[in-house]
Amino acid sequence: MRGNIMAIKKLVLIRHGESTWNQENRFTGWTDVALSAKGVEEAHQAGKLLKAEGYTFDYAYTSVLKRAIATLWYIQEEMGLEWIPVEKEWRLNERHYGALQGLNKAETAQKYGDEQVLLWRRGFAITPPALTEDDERFPGHDPRYSQLNREQLPLTESLAITIDRVIPFWNAVIKPRVASGERVIIAAHGNSLRALVKHLDGISEKDILELNIPTGVPLVYEFDDNMNPVKHYYLGNPEEIAAKSHAVASQGKAA
Amino acid sequence: MRGNIMAIKKLVLIRHGESTWNQENRFTGWTDVALSAKGVEEAHQAGKLLKAEGYTFDYAYTSVLKRAIATLWYIQEEMGLEWIPVEKEWRLNERHYGALQGLNKAETAQKYGDEQVLLWRRGFAITPPALTEDDERFPGHDPRYSQLNREQLPLTESLAITIDRVIPFWNAVIKPRVASGERVIIAAHGNSLRALVKHLDGISEKDILELNIPTGVPLVYEFDDNMNPVKHYYLGNPEEIAAKSHAVASQGKAA
Repeated sequence: MRGNIMAIKKLVLIRHGESTWNQENRFTGWTDVALSAKGVEEAHQAGKLLKAEGYTFDYAYTSVLKRAIATLWYIQEEMGLEWIPVEKEWRLNERHYGALQGLNKAETAQKYGDEQVLLWRRGFAITPPALTEDDERFPGHDPRYSQLNREQLPLTESLAITIDRVIPFWNAVIKPRVASGERVIIAAHGNSLRALVKHLDGISEKDILELNIPTGVPLVYEFDDNMNPVKHYYLGNPEEIAAKSHAVASQGKAA
Repeated sequence: MRGNIMAIKKLVLIRHGESTWNQENRFTGWTDVALSAKGVEEAHQAGKLLKAEGYTFDYAYTSVLKRAIATLWYIQEEMGLEWIPVEKEWRLNERHYGALQGLNKAETAQKYGDEQVLLWRRGFAITPPALTEDDERFPGHDPRYSQLNREQLPLTESLAITIDRVIPFWNAVIKPRVASGERVIIAAHGNSLRALVKHLDGISEKDILELNIPTGVPLVYEFDDNMNPVKHYYLGNPEEIAAKSHAVASQGKAA
């Protein structure tokens, strides 16, 4: 390997654009809701930006939820990359929000208090109230999860539990592909991406709770030859990105 | 296996909706042109029809050309099946039209005569004029074909050559999946689907030239337990389907 000069390895992360339930301020989790018109537009803008910045991809990962899959689709469309392989993986799903799924965030805050909701949303190892298996929201009723065993099917998840499914998938599947030099994009969700970012940057359990990844903004990670992350940055207008991060942070408030 | 009652195995084929070059009446082949607005609508209609008829799918195959991939995408979107695995395979591409790619069909017919164009379009083993490797249209210049060896990269193709890449892929990859009971859809092209239909129904080299598969109409094949095709039929309004088949048949005319 002496004298083998390696190119910088880049990975692009993108959180899906606004969904119809973001709009309605409802806890979504594994509920398979579509992008809103604004979310579709965010995805197109991300694709245009990536193309304008000279990015291209060899391979894409996303969840099995349509808001992430469609975000990726519109990016591929803008970049003329419809043809690249796309792997859809349940381990990249949003955190499962248990029995809160479907409830309005502001109403839930009025009922339980801002503090409890903030704990459910941002407590590292705190799980929202669990579903029961007879609940129609239980993933065991959905054919897309028919290959999962009972242990893998969540009734509710904390960020800690989400990390426990995201990071093994990163280590076993995605990381080796990036290490081999392939240019990879991951279109996923606020909490599955937060899980990955915590791992890559060694962020503490406390600090990760304050980290808000804006929707529809490409987040680029660069790695050295040993796959250590050396830098990361968002693409696009810094002021717009800051405004987007703030919008996410204030969603849980009752007022 | 005694007493093991198997369900009917079904396979759905769909030819992509109208593309921008169908509209302009140009030879397309491996050129990666988008669906027209009408083509997008055809795909949505196909998805609505499949959903209304109670179809669902476990797995999808398509080509590496965006008009087929997008047709599949809009069908998935209508059916809420964005999450199913999609395998994109160059062997399902349209026939490569060689040096005719990009030329207007009517102008080509005026220049070379209706008969020559009909031979190029419908002659079983007749290849259009070949590309040279330095032509920008040569697939060897396109990253999506970077894994293909020189033997696999076409300079031009007849229907016979198209069959020689489609049928091995059917036999090795798709057929075993259908045989295992998975519900499969293939979104592809006029000639890659004609290749498959010729094989499934044992159609002669002469008769296959007269067979026109309409765009955006689901074509269902049913198989017995030994994967012999027992029947096939289009979904939808028979008069509309007949009109669509006729429209395809008359594209090559100079007048």
